[in-house]
Amino acid sequence: MMELPTRVDVREVGPRDGLQIEAPIGTDEKIRLIRALVATGVQRIEATAFVSPRAVPAMADAERIAEYVQSVPGVEWSGLVASPHGAERAIATGLRTIEYVVSASDGHSQANARRSTQEAVDAVAQVASIVHDAGGRLEVIIAVSWDCPFDGPTDPQRTASIAARALELGADRLCFGDTIGTTTPVRVWRLLDAVRTAIGGAPGADTVPLGAHFHNTRGTGIASAFAALQAGVTQLDASVGGLGGCPFAPGASGNIATEELVYLLDDAGITTGVDLDKVLQACVVATELVGHPLESDLFRAGGRNRPRGVPA
Amino acid sequence: MMELPTRVDVREVGPRDGLQIEAPIGTDEKIRLIRALVATGVQRIEATAFVSPRAVPAMADAERIAEYVQSVPGVEWSGLVASPHGAERAIATGLRTIEYVVSASDGHSQANARRSTQEAVDAVAQVASIVHDAGGRLEVIIAVSWDCPFDGPTDPQRTASIAARALELGADRLCFGDTIGTTTPVRVWRLLDAVRTAIGGAPGADTVPLGAHFHNTRGTGIASAFAALQAGVTQLDASVGGLGGCPFAPGASGNIATEELVYLLDDAGITTGVDLDKVLQACVVATELVGHPLESDLFRAGGRNRPRGVPA
Repeated sequence: MMELPTRVDVREVGPRDGLQIEAPIGTDEKIRLIRALVATGVQRIEATAFVSPRAVPAMADAERIAEYVQSVPGVEWSGLVASPHGAERAIATGLRTIEYVVSASDGHSQANARRSTQEAVDAVAQVASIVHDAGGRLEVIIAVSWDCPFDGPTDPQRTASIAARALELGADRLCFGDTIGTTTPVRVWRLLDAVRTAIGGAPGADTVPLGAHFHNTRGTGIASAFAALQAGVTQLDASVGGLGGCPFAPGASGNIATEELVYLLDDAGITTGVDLDKVLQACVVATELVGHPLESDLFRAGGRNRPRGVPA
Repeated sequence: MMELPTRVDVREVGPRDGLQIEAPIGTDEKIRLIRALVATGVQRIEATAFVSPRAVPAMADAERIAEYVQSVPGVEWSGLVASPHGAERAIATGLRTIEYVVSASDGHSQANARRSTQEAVDAVAQVASIVHDAGGRLEVIIAVSWDCPFDGPTDPQRTASIAARALELGADRLCFGDTIGTTTPVRVWRLLDAVRTAIGGAPGADTVPLGAHFHNTRGTGIASAFAALQAGVTQLDASVGGLGGCPFAPGASGNIATEELVYLLDDAGITTGVDLDKVLQACVVATELVGHPLESDLFRAGGRNRPRGVPA
């Protein structure tokens, strides 16, 4: 069998990717969800996004959320940005882990950030300066790494070249986003092969952590996540209850559910530090906040199998 | 990367496993669903079950369904049985592919068939005689191969021993059932490793087709199916729209969805002979018949990505 990591670093993206497509909820309510997520033991949480409040009203309280989360120790908190201006806003709050999103297709890049992929990638240098000058870490997330809702399939070489260029311009981590939930295990392997070839000569290529971000829109997200682990990815995004979606990607639906990912990893003896039952408790909070049932199959099934005589 | 098969033999189980937990629907309505499934190009369909109509009212029309399907060429039609008596009923209709279910745990075996695992396995010889005397093929399905809702985890050695014994007693094919949708990729690998070791010396062990049957109850069914392919399984059960569940397995929910499995396999360049768009059309029929939304994420998402300019 292929080798799997002994530990997977899960990033909970519920407070950002999970909520951005929902009707805006109060900052206090978001903090209630964030507290429930901290209780799960997850060690990285995407707290918010520093983007246009007109375009994404649900993230209009980014500064307030960023201020709150920095009072909570033991978690690496990150903020997502789509421009150097966003990075300046994020750094000004004190956050020191910044995710900068570039779109691998021009169609999604224009819809998401009103500029071409080339312009977005060129700006990695400026974002890296802003982040590194403050002593921070920069992760570059490549959206629509596999498929674009406007432009169709993304050439793996194109995504791989963006990854290599992002490293050259200062990215400390990379994350490949299956933004509209279309990819499948074998294409995950193919892209990661292309990425390894492309970044081979870049500075830090041997040690740069590779992450991936899957949506379960077509039922294949968890399978793709498993395939990514087989291909050397050690960082996976997931969202409590499978919340999520991209407002600029028609047809996108939820992220892979944190509890389903943790269930699979627990069952394989792979460490995450995340307590499954506590994630299910956070699902209850999430359901109350968004006001509709969550997509997670595991949550709907009530969690693990509880055979006769085993207390729930 | 691990080797994957170039072709996967999908069995559509919607008319049996998919419907058995639903309120009974008319035979004519079932035939409407079956016709929609035949149109998908799938080459094996589980038509019905020859079980007690009191226990499973939805399968009370087994003989009528069996009679109908034998008028439709080009598909290998199978009937599920849980006893030698059921096998006699099935063979009497003219069906020649018989699935005999044994439960790997005593708790499930008693609930499902009112006898121990040992008694059920011993009966393989009698069922094989009935089937082989009529020139038919016998598949032994091992239910709760990984976990039982009553007895908890099933020891892989126990499931593997049942597999070996079933081959000795006349099984022509084997299928491992994740009846309550709890297993995950690494446990799939472990069980299949144990099975290969256990059946190594059995007659026909080198060539016996291995199949698997997963439910998506905890969100991991498609990932487990992919893992099974990596471990040499070439036959997979799936149900249109993710219909399904076991009336004798509390907490069970739908089978893996045929359209999600086919989507993943198509995307990997693995041949199934099944037309994805036609499966989505069959989902529309299934929704009408069962009168509630289906669980399939892919169906809810509207199918494949349809980028700008590509007609739906």
